[in-house]
Amino acid sequence: MTDLPHAPDQDTESYVVGIDFGTLSGRAVVVRVRDGEELGTGVHPYPHAVIEDRLPGTGRRLPPDWALQHPEDWREVLRTAVPAALADAGVDAARVIGIATDFTACTVLPALADGTPLAEVAAWADRPHAWPKLWKHHAAQGQADRINALAHARGEKWIGRYGGKISAEWQYAKALQVLEEDAEVYAACERWIEAADWIVWQLTGAESRNTCTAGYKGIFQDGGYPSEEYLAALHPGFADFARTKLEHPDGLAALGSRVGSLSVEAAAWTGLPEGIAVAAGNVDAHVAAPAAQAVENGRLLAIMGTSTCHVVNGPVLADVPGICGVVDGGIAEGAWGYEAGQSAVGDIFAWWLRQGLPADYLAEAEAAGEDAHQLLTRKAAAQRVGAHGLVALDWMNGNRSTLVDHHLSGVIAGLTLATRPEDVYRALLEATAFGTRTIVDALEAGGVPVSEFVVTGGLKKNALLMQIHADVLRRPVSLAVSEQGPALGSAIHAAVAAGAYPDVRTASAAMGRVQRHAYLPDADRADAYDALYAEYRLLHEHFGTGDDLLLHRLRAIRNTALTHDSEDRNP
Amino acid sequence: MTDLPHAPDQDTESYVVGIDFGTLSGRAVVVRVRDGEELGTGVHPYPHAVIEDRLPGTGRRLPPDWALQHPEDWREVLRTAVPAALADAGVDAARVIGIATDFTACTVLPALADGTPLAEVAAWADRPHAWPKLWKHHAAQGQADRINALAHARGEKWIGRYGGKISAEWQYAKALQVLEEDAEVYAACERWIEAADWIVWQLTGAESRNTCTAGYKGIFQDGGYPSEEYLAALHPGFADFARTKLEHPDGLAALGSRVGSLSVEAAAWTGLPEGIAVAAGNVDAHVAAPAAQAVENGRLLAIMGTSTCHVVNGPVLADVPGICGVVDGGIAEGAWGYEAGQSAVGDIFAWWLRQGLPADYLAEAEAAGEDAHQLLTRKAAAQRVGAHGLVALDWMNGNRSTLVDHHLSGVIAGLTLATRPEDVYRALLEATAFGTRTIVDALEAGGVPVSEFVVTGGLKKNALLMQIHADVLRRPVSLAVSEQGPALGSAIHAAVAAGAYPDVRTASAAMGRVQRHAYLPDADRADAYDALYAEYRLLHEHFGTGDDLLLHRLRAIRNTALTHDSEDRNP
Repeated sequence: MTDLPHAPDQDTESYVVGIDFGTLSGRAVVVRVRDGEELGTGVHPYPHAVIEDRLPGTGRRLPPDWALQHPEDWREVLRTAVPAALADAGVDAARVIGIATDFTACTVLPALADGTPLAEVAAWADRPHAWPKLWKHHAAQGQADRINALAHARGEKWIGRYGGKISAEWQYAKALQVLEEDAEVYAACERWIEAADWIVWQLTGAESRNTCTAGYKGIFQDGGYPSEEYLAALHPGFADFARTKLEHPDGLAALGSRVGSLSVEAAAWTGLPEGIAVAAGNVDAHVAAPAAQAVENGRLLAIMGTSTCHVVNGPVLADVPGICGVVDGGIAEGAWGYEAGQSAVGDIFAWWLRQGLPADYLAEAEAAGEDAHQLLTRKAAAQRVGAHGLVALDWMNGNRSTLVDHHLSGVIAGLTLATRPEDVYRALLEATAFGTRTIVDALEAGGVPVSEFVVTGGLKKNALLMQIHADVLRRPVSLAVSEQGPALGSAIHAAVAAGAYPDVRTASAAMGRVQRHAYLPDADRADAYDALYAEYRLLHEHFGTGDDLLLHRLRAIRNTALTHDSEDRNP
Repeated sequence: MTDLPHAPDQDTESYVVGIDFGTLSGRAVVVRVRDGEELGTGVHPYPHAVIEDRLPGTGRRLPPDWALQHPEDWREVLRTAVPAALADAGVDAARVIGIATDFTACTVLPALADGTPLAEVAAWADRPHAWPKLWKHHAAQGQADRINALAHARGEKWIGRYGGKISAEWQYAKALQVLEEDAEVYAACERWIEAADWIVWQLTGAESRNTCTAGYKGIFQDGGYPSEEYLAALHPGFADFARTKLEHPDGLAALGSRVGSLSVEAAAWTGLPEGIAVAAGNVDAHVAAPAAQAVENGRLLAIMGTSTCHVVNGPVLADVPGICGVVDGGIAEGAWGYEAGQSAVGDIFAWWLRQGLPADYLAEAEAAGEDAHQLLTRKAAAQRVGAHGLVALDWMNGNRSTLVDHHLSGVIAGLTLATRPEDVYRALLEATAFGTRTIVDALEAGGVPVSEFVVTGGLKKNALLMQIHADVLRRPVSLAVSEQGPALGSAIHAAVAAGAYPDVRTASAAMGRVQRHAYLPDADRADAYDALYAEYRLLHEHFGTGDDLLLHRLRAIRNTALTHDSEDRNP
């Protein structure tokens, strides 16, 4: 809450609702249009969470690496989280002028022509491939490999827009898996649609497709999808995939545009007025940029949590190897939106903490009332740059950007008998900052300026990590103020869709909140980090590039050992 | 105790005493000459232990990296541990026919011409350089660097016998440090003598010099010490060092030879008969070979503890890069004795255990009545070779053989978010075995056959480590039976010196004990380890060789950071 006076104008204030559909829950927020003040929140955890073992209903067992969701869990967010947020805000629902949503991506489902999920059609409900595939469904790697090999073999121009690799998580690999593993479900699928667009369909009663997911996950580039010739070469039955199951007669809806009005049914679910503006769908990472005033060119937004996603607008289309994607208007209209990522960040720190701590450390933490993270942070923060003698590669979950290689793994060099837990901990914090610098350097080398590093997500509270990023990047680090950046970002898009602001940039300036330059680089530490970063880059080059990688061979050895039966074990 | 009948012959049995002077204590053992049965033991911990901070008496502060000992602590072993061992054995002292000793090396001291340590001369007792320098005194690296550079520049033939590097721990670097830092002490030093020889002097009343320390620590090769020209080029005042302070008119005494008789004074100290045989001095590692029947060519003895020392006899002089030394008769007469080493082995496992364990592991260990080592061993032993996906470089304390580089540090590659404490633990066990294989391969490539791996020292009890060594080396692993290998080895040398056996080989066969082929290699696991060893060798090559090493730079960065003042630290 701020101390801005709003009571006097309460009769004329208007509000918007933003809803963020995450991996485990949906979160609705009620926001004041005038200044972005977040007035109320409602959260609905998905009862089915992530479906990885057995299909709901029949209990049919799923293969490894599958990850599904239940569409009814998403609808229930509309029915419960939105009314809860309204009640929490204490505002008159009649004053809400627009609603917008964002979603995990690529989370995608097969639907009938009227939007009914195949999973909810009795004839198909016991078929695993009829269900929505969550972003982290990882069972289509074989399809992705063929998609990439064929694209490079044919010289498809679009492959360069995705750092040279289409992910197994995205629309084509997942759809091709359906075709190849359950052709009947594929045939019954009339629309193959991102959940980001499907949820908007639930609000408006009409299908729309947004620029962001079509561009980043649907290979929509330069006004079209991949050619029928390319798709036919993948699989003859796949030739018309994009034309029949993706394309929409209205084309793509720009982010922040109004794609329809709240239907009678959705108004009843949410308690919001029928007919208010509904904005185009969006992705949770990208939608957070305006919430942190990070839509101007060069302000790179890092959504830092278990992993990190980077989004930044640039003035021109540039060739940046190893990025996840570049999409015209992918973050905001009028700019090229670049996306990159790190496969693990907070997960790496948590991994190290899970290894345990010495007994005297645990006693010290207990005496100081600290948790393990706080203890190691305090000890690590007291060190001079380089004093631990370590450098690490932050690839414990592979490398998304700029190597796009999920078969890599982590390396720690410089260990001695004097190396302590906080030494490794700090080296891991630094490694993630070096990974970020690699991405920032690649963007700048490709022609995309990065002037400022803006952080949102849980790790923005880690002061040591933030200072290390400022020093390593030699750039100011700004912090998003909102604790619910995607939901606020959606609300900003709702305000634009409702016509309260002319565009997302203007709305962002009025409604977004950022603590600008919360951390500034220190020149001495930045110099010291330059020396360590040079070593990181040498390790990066040695272990991450080339045709025959030691880390790939180690993984192959591991996988062979793990898939062997349990006979003939060691003593 | 064995069930061999000895009571009937008790009147005619003869015994010997072996004394092992370790880093923190001296251990005497009374052994039956006929079969090597160990009948009694006495241990005396040194009251002054390792003198690292302040000089005894005046309390004068010592510089960093110094490590001294007190000669009176050593004499006290003769006065207390020997009588205690005799009492423990319950044998008649009159039936003891010989005594022999072994010592840490290079532990070396300045003495007067009559053997009085300068440290015990009032005029010098407050001068740090007058005191015995323990093997791990590490303050003479600058001198060692010059010794090596000059030897290579002049093409001194002997440098090749030491893997190309004379250690800062050895006689010349330590003596040159005395000359350069306290010329008065150097001038007062009439004899520069290994503690291994000095303790024998205390027993016989006359100076002798043994083949082993002269060869491995004193650069005695091909019948002589380094030339006066070489020594003068190091420092003009050092020209006559070897001639005046090392050389002895009787030359060098072969191992197992009788160098004198127990003096009246030493007989009074020990309770042993005056006039019995006293053997030439020896080194704790080398003396252990006959105790484990590891004197035949090709039987490599590994003394495995915090670090590992390898000794093996070979039939010919061969060029083996990276060994610590090769000395004619250095282990036993009639063979070339090769020595190599690993700077840390058990220390690496202890280092990892010190990092701590997860709470659920600690609970599991407590429930099972295990300590942390046992828990991780059990979990690691259950894994198939390669299943952890890791490979590590065992350089957490530098690399002694074959790289002879103490500025290297450890590396772990292949880490993932799924990596658990036991995975790293097993990878570290394997890394030390790969380090051993590197040494064994170098010996064989140089022309020194290694047919069998014999282990003594604390780590021989680690069954998983032993099996890993058998598999990685693809050789049988035998275990020394004695828990006090050096002391038993000394007793064997005493028996030879007393004339009970014609030579050390014969005595070893009668008195040494080994559990032959306690572990045999498994062909499948050996094959699997070949693949991992190939990766280890690639890391070894990448990180360990070349002119400009990443790990050296990391250490330099660390040292710079640590020597900076504490201002301007991170938040």
